[in-house]
Amino acid sequence: MIVTMSTNASQAEISAVVGEVENQGLKAHLIRGTERTVIVVVGEAGRLQGDVIRVMPGVFDTAPIVRPYKLASRDVNPQGSVVHVGGVAIGGPALTIIAGPCSVESRQQMMETAHAIQEAGGQMLRGGAYKPRSSPYSFQGMGEAGLELLAEARAETGLPVVTEVMAPEQVALVVRYADMLQIGARNMQNYNLLNAVGESQHPVLLKRGMSATLEELLMSAEYILSHGNRRVAVCERGIRTFETITRNTTDINAIPVLKSLTHLPVLLDPSHSTGQRTYVAAIARAAVAAGADGLIIEVHPDPDRALSDGGQSLRPEQFFELVQQARRLAAVLGRS
Amino acid sequence: MIVTMSTNASQAEISAVVGEVENQGLKAHLIRGTERTVIVVVGEAGRLQGDVIRVMPGVFDTAPIVRPYKLASRDVNPQGSVVHVGGVAIGGPALTIIAGPCSVESRQQMMETAHAIQEAGGQMLRGGAYKPRSSPYSFQGMGEAGLELLAEARAETGLPVVTEVMAPEQVALVVRYADMLQIGARNMQNYNLLNAVGESQHPVLLKRGMSATLEELLMSAEYILSHGNRRVAVCERGIRTFETITRNTTDINAIPVLKSLTHLPVLLDPSHSTGQRTYVAAIARAAVAAGADGLIIEVHPDPDRALSDGGQSLRPEQFFELVQQARRLAAVLGRS
Amino acid sequence: MIVTMSTNASQAEISAVVGEVENQGLKAHLIRGTERTVIVVVGEAGRLQGDVIRVMPGVFDTAPIVRPYKLASRDVNPQGSVVHVGGVAIGGPALTIIAGPCSVESRQQMMETAHAIQEAGGQMLRGGAYKPRSSPYSFQGMGEAGLELLAEARAETGLPVVTEVMAPEQVALVVRYADMLQIGARNMQNYNLLNAVGESQHPVLLKRGMSATLEELLMSAEYILSHGNRRVAVCERGIRTFETITRNTTDINAIPVLKSLTHLPVLLDPSHSTGQRTYVAAIARAAVAAGADGLIIEVHPDPDRALSDGGQSLRPEQFFELVQQARRLAAVLGRS
Amino acid sequence: MIVTMSTNASQAEISAVVGEVENQGLKAHLIRGTERTVIVVVGEAGRLQGDVIRVMPGVFDTAPIVRPYKLASRDVNPQGSVVHVGGVAIGGPALTIIAGPCSVESRQQMMETAHAIQEAGGQMLRGGAYKPRSSPYSFQGMGEAGLELLAEARAETGLPVVTEVMAPEQVALVVRYADMLQIGARNMQNYNLLNAVGESQHPVLLKRGMSATLEELLMSAEYILSHGNRRVAVCERGIRTFETITRNTTDINAIPVLKSLTHLPVLLDPSHSTGQRTYVAAIARAAVAAGADGLIIEVHPDPDRALSDGGQSLRPEQFFELVQQARRLAAVLGRS
Repeated sequence: MIVTMSTNASQAEISAVVGEVENQGLKAHLIRGTERTVIVVVGEAGRLQGDVIRVMPGVFDTAPIVRPYKLASRDVNPQGSVVHVGGVAIGGPALTIIAGPCSVESRQQMMETAHAIQEAGGQMLRGGAYKPRSSPYSFQGMGEAGLELLAEARAETGLPVVTEVMAPEQVALVVRYADMLQIGARNMQNYNLLNAVGESQHPVLLKRGMSATLEELLMSAEYILSHGNRRVAVCERGIRTFETITRNTTDINAIPVLKSLTHLPVLLDPSHSTGQRTYVAAIARAAVAAGADGLIIEVHPDPDRALSDGGQSLRPEQFFELVQQARRLAAVLGRS
Repeated sequence: MIVTMSTNASQAEISAVVGEVENQGLKAHLIRGTERTVIVVVGEAGRLQGDVIRVMPGVFDTAPIVRPYKLASRDVNPQGSVVHVGGVAIGGPALTIIAGPCSVESRQQMMETAHAIQEAGGQMLRGGAYKPRSSPYSFQGMGEAGLELLAEARAETGLPVVTEVMAPEQVALVVRYADMLQIGARNMQNYNLLNAVGESQHPVLLKRGMSATLEELLMSAEYILSHGNRRVAVCERGIRTFETITRNTTDINAIPVLKSLTHLPVLLDPSHSTGQRTYVAAIARAAVAAGADGLIIEVHPDPDRALSDGGQSLRPEQFFELVQQARRLAAVLGRS
Repeated sequence: MIVTMSTNASQAEISAVVGEVENQGLKAHLIRGTERTVIVVVGEAGRLQGDVIRVMPGVFDTAPIVRPYKLASRDVNPQGSVVHVGGVAIGGPALTIIAGPCSVESRQQMMETAHAIQEAGGQMLRGGAYKPRSSPYSFQGMGEAGLELLAEARAETGLPVVTEVMAPEQVALVVRYADMLQIGARNMQNYNLLNAVGESQHPVLLKRGMSATLEELLMSAEYILSHGNRRVAVCERGIRTFETITRNTTDINAIPVLKSLTHLPVLLDPSHSTGQRTYVAAIARAAVAAGADGLIIEVHPDPDRALSDGGQSLRPEQFFELVQQARRLAAVLGRS
Repeated sequence: MIVTMSTNASQAEISAVVGEVENQGLKAHLIRGTERTVIVVVGEAGRLQGDVIRVMPGVFDTAPIVRPYKLASRDVNPQGSVVHVGGVAIGGPALTIIAGPCSVESRQQMMETAHAIQEAGGQMLRGGAYKPRSSPYSFQGMGEAGLELLAEARAETGLPVVTEVMAPEQVALVVRYADMLQIGARNMQNYNLLNAVGESQHPVLLKRGMSATLEELLMSAEYILSHGNRRVAVCERGIRTFETITRNTTDINAIPVLKSLTHLPVLLDPSHSTGQRTYVAAIARAAVAAGADGLIIEVHPDPDRALSDGGQSLRPEQFFELVQQARRLAAVLGRS
């Protein structure tokens, strides 16, 4: 940590800060500038009680030296990690396209969608059996019956399945059906859940919380990784800002920034990040152009009858067209 | 829902919207203005698939008519609800001051703090046994041993205890020790947890998520209320904005707005909403002046040695002074 | 406007709202739903005092029907407008790439940059002679001497020039040198300046304010258009959010949303929207893929010696590579 | 500036940073930690090209040491400055209450309001003659005729007058009528205007931009102060966040934070910071309790007929009640 003292900090205040640092078992280096004194704390950051120092008399500001995540850092694997899910490699040279309905609703809906996705060239299937809904009066998902339909759709098409898990006690059940566990945006800092999916050793798709910084996203990935579960992909799905004309604001900067900070594969979900079908294809193309490793997209055979998120779901033919565009762009950028 | 059509919407597009509304079993009222046609949908909002209509051709915009919470609405109890926790009445004429350390750390720390709070005039004790931390490498709380110390501090002082619960499977344990369950900001939309504390029938202190709207906060309260658990208080604890000079931005508007929208008691947590000890007293006073029913404040006998949030914790003598100020202000405003 | 009454609004309150609407010379249509009454106000929106009604007793909420901009609306020219600046057509089938240094610093710097841009395939030159700086102690630009250098660079290369104008009284001077006037983000709602550039009848590049909604951006365009000056292009340059790892958050959604709302050409400035050279190319590609009509990019022959924004400026060879990538993507998307 | 190198920065990269610092004529202090090397740059911050260093190879992060404002800093006058306007002392022991209509509309409206404010105990009069409106089709203010009415109201009541100035060329005119010049939120970074009001040597009320940080607000104050004009007061008026239930979010933290950072008087405008009449009194009380030096409040004799902001304007009797409450709170806090 770096401690900047006020211009008018007294010698006693400077000494007190140095004393506190040493008290914590760390070393303090003093630099006296023309205007201010700066104290650089050297040692193990994890042991430092930084906020205590920040409010000591005479302290102007403090700043961390060390990023708080280690296993998620790109330093660990500079060439980037590939996460294998079923036969699909996320993070490799090929773009990964995951698609499916917001909610699993019926056998017919799932089979129809799964076939359409396979024919369009999608690699994985998504669909929610447990749905986090802001209202207790909204449809909350089919539960285990939905998981069974997902497994059935996989059996028919061969597409691996990703689905959301909402609570630690659901993990054991969901891993029996799904190839990859999704942590939704609202649960990005549900640490008991992160620990549970970490322990499961199952592949995880971790979505960014709607007001989480990229550093916090990587700290949440670190929770999962710290259990020895290295199969984690992270996903930008739009953040909450003052702009309300779209459901969320797609933070497209997140794609190149995450690629530089972490070795984990990086996906984008243009369905949630825009909230409107009309804008999904443009933002999916932008993600590919910015270097995303994959896309996760809502598709429904009859969006007007969808039990959730119908307005942002693509029709099968729109999805087919989007896959074509994404592939063409990927090719230009040297990706298959 | 109200559907506004584009200025150049065709008659066929207008008819299609009306058809879709009727298809959903609802009634559509058409109003032709000089510039645009407006369609008002009448019927049960819960049954309407609004986002399907929002993206139909020719639709310019849609807006809801009905607020989605019912049990949390002030209409239910216009004079305001009082939540009784131990002998303490939250939401009545008296201001409620809850205080204690961020984390329970040791018997000595808890007893010393509890006595200081009681002597200063606090009514309830807070302290975390399970701590949500952004880093997996930070102190995660004492767990059940911490709960035991909280119960011991209550036995000594008579102060009822509120503590955070982080996962559904912890609820049964925590209710054995605590008088009130806290749902932290990161878990405001952890619906499995909301359902679990709802079913527990134990009093709940629900904190606003760091980027949750006030409507979403009330929807989360609705989850708890929908289980027949009416003892819920809501708490503003600062929101995330572009301003980084403070840890969060205290949304002081939330106090009068929540008081007008809901009958539930409304508290403010100035420790988290500012993140710096220096500013806590000023914001605590502001909350009382704005009409808050209570405060929840971090106090530590030796903040420089605290295992978490030391920088925003008050020393006992600072807390004593704050209680004096708050009481004087409350008196001026006709509150005891 | 649409007025939604509270569930418990009295008949007197409903009548008062209707009376107020009629008082303002407008018509009120009443719809009584099962839960609530809705009043649709029909007539000329510009004449309505909406915020008076919003706070009348018994009113639950109000929502506008009419978007407040007219000349900027896509309805005016559904196929999209082309803005001609010198020989360059912004908004036509070809992608427009504008580039140059943040600040004009010297003859050598400008000539070197202008030639590099021309050789790389850029179509227009940018460079600031008047610089809005957050500190009064920072370099404020070369002023008229800078304008002369811009004109000289145009004379040598044939590239039309865009440069920022900061105050109404500068407009007359700047139009003598520049082909297009830039309104910077901080001045997006400087209405006296918008009126002055509107009256100048000179082409205008209007940047989005850092916390302006897209609707507000179009309202500011409307100020310029309302003077009969139809040569306006709008530019996304990143918005301010809670995320601080990048200088701003690129709102990539703005590209398809603006293309659907307005007929004006839409550009993106990836230099400011990211703030770091490393991320500029990825976001420039994303903009092209999302459908932007052009890019505006900071290029400096020696960024380490730049007097402003060196960290986000590309070196000439990086810009060359970016133009190649942008052209290849544009070709795939059917653009030249 | 403090430069933190990456964990895997090479010796050559470290030397390059040191070389660049020395190249800029500054001194570099090297500290080698267990994980990283830190370089502290000592010397005059104004001369440093920091963003060039931030993007050098091997650099992990950089942080400033020196706050960029000097004249606005509390260090300049630790006991706080008092700004005298007419006979009114802003920033002294007495709370200053400024009130009046959003727009000057007619002689009758101004005289009626001015008398009501005087009788209620207000100290200064506000009223807009030039109005920044997001739509070019809205009422833009009465201009000089409005200034004349303000001067007339002052002549009748003795209350000094503050009014907004929107462009540099208006300053000479407005100072002839007004006692204090207001810079509105949209113009907080209109530097030509800041320079013009600085040169005028007239008292200035500087409002925070709707997405300006507190540091940026003080930098804008620094522009004015740097012209030798020391009579500046700053004003929180709500910031733009994701919460839309109120017009803006009152950043109440700004009050104690600004009081600690600057010697300038600090006011709050609860009319704009809430946008609804119902919430104005609660937030005005909160501001006083948090330590604000004054309030600026919209009052209109007939808000339903106001040409702008009627919904957030108090009726005279509501303002009277608010002044009573504010005075009682101020007394409790040792203020008159």
